[in-house]
This record gives sequence, C-alpha cells and structure tokens, in this order.
Amino acid sequence: MTIRGAPAIGIAAAFGLSLEAAAWKGHDLQAFRSHLVKVADEIQATRPTAVNMAWAMEHLKAIINEEFAGVDELRQRLIARVDEMAEEDVAINHRMAEFGASLVHDGDIIIHHCNTGSLATVDWGTALGAIRLAHEQGKKVHVLVDETRPRLQGSRLTAWELEQYGIPYDIITDNAAGYFLSTHKAQKVMFGADRIARNGDVANKVGSYMLALAAKDNNIPVYSVAPSSSIDLHIACGKQIPIEERDPQEVLGIEIDGKRVSPKSATALNPAFDITPFRLITAFVTEKGIVKPPFSKNLSITLKKPFKGVIL
Amino acid sequence: MTIRGAPAIGIAAAFGLSLEAAAWKGHDLQAFRSHLVKVADEIQATRPTAVNMAWAMEHLKAIINEEFAGVDELRQRLIARVDEMAEEDVAINHRMAEFGASLVHDGDIIIHHCNTGSLATVDWGTALGAIRLAHEQGKKVHVLVDETRPRLQGSRLTAWELEQYGIPYDIITDNAAGYFLSTHKAQKVMFGADRIARNGDVANKVGSYMLALAAKDNNIPVYSVAPSSSIDLHIACGKQIPIEERDPQEVLGIEIDGKRVSPKSATALNPAFDITPFRLITAFVTEKGIVKPPFSKNLSITLKKPFKGVIL
Repeated sequence: MTIRGAPAIGIAAAFGLSLEAAAWKGHDLQAFRSHLVKVADEIQATRPTAVNMAWAMEHLKAIINEEFAGVDELRQRLIARVDEMAEEDVAINHRMAEFGASLVHDGDIIIHHCNTGSLATVDWGTALGAIRLAHEQGKKVHVLVDETRPRLQGSRLTAWELEQYGIPYDIITDNAAGYFLSTHKAQKVMFGADRIARNGDVANKVGSYMLALAAKDNNIPVYSVAPSSSIDLHIACGKQIPIEERDPQEVLGIEIDGKRVSPKSATALNPAFDITPFRLITAFVTEKGIVKPPFSKNLSITLKKPFKGVIL
Repeated sequence: MTIRGAPAIGIAAAFGLSLEAAAWKGHDLQAFRSHLVKVADEIQATRPTAVNMAWAMEHLKAIINEEFAGVDELRQRLIARVDEMAEEDVAINHRMAEFGASLVHDGDIIIHHCNTGSLATVDWGTALGAIRLAHEQGKKVHVLVDETRPRLQGSRLTAWELEQYGIPYDIITDNAAGYFLSTHKAQKVMFGADRIARNGDVANKVGSYMLALAAKDNNIPVYSVAPSSSIDLHIACGKQIPIEERDPQEVLGIEIDGKRVSPKSATALNPAFDITPFRLITAFVTEKGIVKPPFSKNLSITLKKPFKGVIL
C-alpha cells in the first residue's frame, strides 16, 4: 500500500521489472527470460483486484518472449519499453481527462470516490484528471469528496490534490453521499476503476456500488474513468473478479481525539473493493473515447480502436 | 450529543421538564403553566429531526393544559406522568423486541446501522433489542456492525453492547455493506428510525438510505424498528422532515495513528440524517405490531391500535 491507485500500481510494477532486468548479472538469455517471467508472476500475485498490473506484466512477458540476440538486447528493449509505457501513460491520462472534462458542465457539483488523481496514476489521473481539466478549461466545479473509509484516500489525498489545483471542495462521509444525491445537491458521480469486466461490471474501491446505486436512484449520471487497460475482456462479469480482503486494522484503527473508538477485542471484516453492476454506470471514459451502453458490445469495440492521444 | 438515540432523547427531554417542574418556586398556576410550556418549546427546538422529543413535549403540554387546583397538583401530575412514561418505554421496548425477534431466523447474519440498543433508548432498545432478544431465545445470530460515520456509534457503542450480550459480530465500514449484501453474505438489514412520515418515508442516521438501497437491490429485507411515537402523521412524506446539519469537525476530526487525516484548511458538510423512501422498507416494527405496506394506510391503523405490552 506504499503505492496505491490501479494505474500507478501498473506502472510501478513495470518499473519493478525494469529494475530487475537492469540488475541481472548473468549472460544466459533463457535463464534471464525465466527469471523475468518468474518475477513478473510474483509481482502480479501481490494485488488481485486491479487489472492494470496484470495487463502491464502480461504485456512485458510477451516482449520477454520475443526474439533477442542476447541478454543485453532483451534488457535494453525491456527498459526502453517501460520508459515508453510511462510516457504513454501521461498521454493516456491527458486524453481521458479531455473526454472526461467534456462531460462536466459549468456549475457542476461532483461526488468523487477514493483518490484518482496524480497520486494514484501517472501525472493527470483518471476521474480527478477530468475534473482538474474541466476546472482549467474555466468551468466552475465543486467537488464533494467522499472520505472513502477505511483508508480515507478521499480526505487524505483527494482533498490535498484539489487544494493544489485550487478547486473548491467539501469533504463528506461516505454515508452522506445518498443525502446529497437524493436532494439533487450533486449533478455527477465520478470514480475510477480497478477492473472492468466484458459486460461493464466494474470493480472499484469499496463503496462505489452503493454510491452508484444512490446516483441511479435519482437519475444522476455515474462515470467510471479508467484507461482501456482496465478493461478485461477475459472476465465475463463482475462475479469473476477476485475481491481483495485487507487488514482488519484498517477498520479498527480509527481514532478520535487520539483514542481508538472500537472495543479492544473487536474484530472486523475489510473487503477493499466491490462490484458496481453495469446497469448503474452511465458511461466509461477511456483514452479511446467515451463508452456508452450496451457495454458488452461497446467495450470490445473501444479496445480495438487506435489511441489518438499525443505523447507529449 | 451527551444524550443520543431518538427514544432516549425523548425520555430525557421529559425528565428535563419534570426537573423544571420540581424546581419551580411560584404559586401562580398560570405563570407555572406558561413557564413549563416555554421550557418545553425550548427543549423541543434543540434537535429537529427525531420526532420522539416533539412527541413527548406535545404530550406533556397537553397535560399541563388540563385543569388543576393549583401549582402542586400540576407538578405532581407532571412528575408522575414522566416516571410512568419511562416505565412504559421499557414495556414498549420489550414488545418491539418481541415483534422484531420474530423476524430473525436462526443463522441470520444481520447488518445493523448506528446504535439502537440500551444506550440509545430506555432499556432494551429498538433494532438491537430485537437482535438481543432473538439471541436470548437461542437463535444463532451474527451482526455486521456498520461503523456509522461520522460519529462511529456502530464501532463505538453497538460493538460494546453486543460484547455485553455475548452476541458475535464483526465491524465493517459503512462502504462495505454493499459488498456483503450483493454477495448475499447478509440476510437482513435492521435499523431504528428518528421519524416516520405518514407514507412510510423514514428519517434515520445518515447512510440508512444507501444501505436500504443496497439491500433492496439484492432482495434482502430491511426492517426499521421504532416505537409508534416515531410515526408522525402530520408529515406527509420524507421531504418535509428537517435534516439536522452537524459540526463539520465530526467529519474532519478523524485520526489514524494519532494524526488528523484531512488537510488543515479542509471544509466539510455533515448532514446527520437522511431519508429512506418507503419503497425500500420491508416492514416497520413497532410496539403495536409489525407494519407492512401499504404504509400510507397501515401506519395510521397501527397508531390507533391499543398497546398490549405489559408494564413490568
């Protein structure tokens, strides 16, 4: 959890493999390949829910298995590709932000879940990148920052990022989102995605499902902003996405006035993600465009589109 | 907030008026009446959302305006009535618990929001009273305790109460309830009520609405357990119930490892309650029986029923 945010995890994993390639001392190409694949698999096993890391590792494993004259050539190719991936990520982020910002209207109050800004990604971010670009385009926006229990990425990170960008916001408890949606004091819900199944079911930070339900119940649009690498066509629907359970101390460790709140002997359950069914999502925002329903058709089409962003 | 929980607030307010009556030094009946009514109105204005206090104050004001020979007679009548109300409250609680426990099945895992036990009421409590009685009847129950941000009444109070009763539980973040409902790892949702409108819309601790939505989305029953004094036939629907906004520090003051999480300059919005629309409620559990839809008809009928509980 030193690195968090699905896109940041993906690129950090890639850099991890790049470092491993740089450190390798041997001269046997096959041994080098086997070692890299083993390390890639080890990295991939550390976080089950988000697909970005799996995507990056699979992508690099395919490169590892290309033809090379020797260890040095593979090493150079791998390191160069990872550097390029980071550059691409910035371009992908910016393009997503452009598509996302086009959905934001002047005067919008937006409920945002978790942290999806530059602390979670490479540079711009996903949902927060869209909000930031809308703000830079001169649109008046106000963000209701879900605090996002248990790790409070909203009040801890998103609030801090919004202050850096000069975007006005208020923190709210996750519980309060329903109040603001049912009284139509918010016009949009935006969050990221850790993995998008073929049918559009989306795994994201726990609480996204109830937030999307409350938005849908009040005819307020829900946008999931994520790079197309978050779309996993191998997964038919959300039920097949593994949900990471994290340390109960994240729930139990909460303090007010320096004092722990729960009884000493209390136990807790801590699923870190949940599945928002496709029927609650108004559109996905990717670097390849805005994807509307029917998702089971349109997500596949989007994945095949070329990326038209400019690598800055 | 030294006293919390709608039923506890109601009876504490009544005792407040009782103390005021006891302390009165004058001999003019009319002045005494005016003073008591003024104090009742002052007490009533302190908390807008829950109806129990308003109910208690209106009930006592009606008594104050009955015919009396003098100050002493009114004083005695008022003090006696308040003592009686507290006794009645225990009987009401126990009868609610009996009706509520009849809905709990052996082996049920129940998601519970906020605190509705003996710390919020007089003796048994509402939703937690039902769970406690089901447990005492030998049914195997397990409670998923919503921590209930911002004030964490779940992890702070409900968890403690459940330990006293020996009922197994796990604390979960409010965000995680959707996960447990959508994976059918919970079979019931139970909470109290701060005010029930004529049509069955119910004001309760913020987060109840999203919790009920997630239950409904998965065909899991939602029971609101509350004394019939929480039913306010003067209010046609939830939109007419005032929602108390509380101190933003309740949201911002959260700490992990002794450190405040949000930026120093952060602001917050803190609605303390929300409205759960009647369509999401499976049944209300009152001391006069279990009330099923159509609520607009059945709540009025229930209110007219005599109370058959035994004052112990």
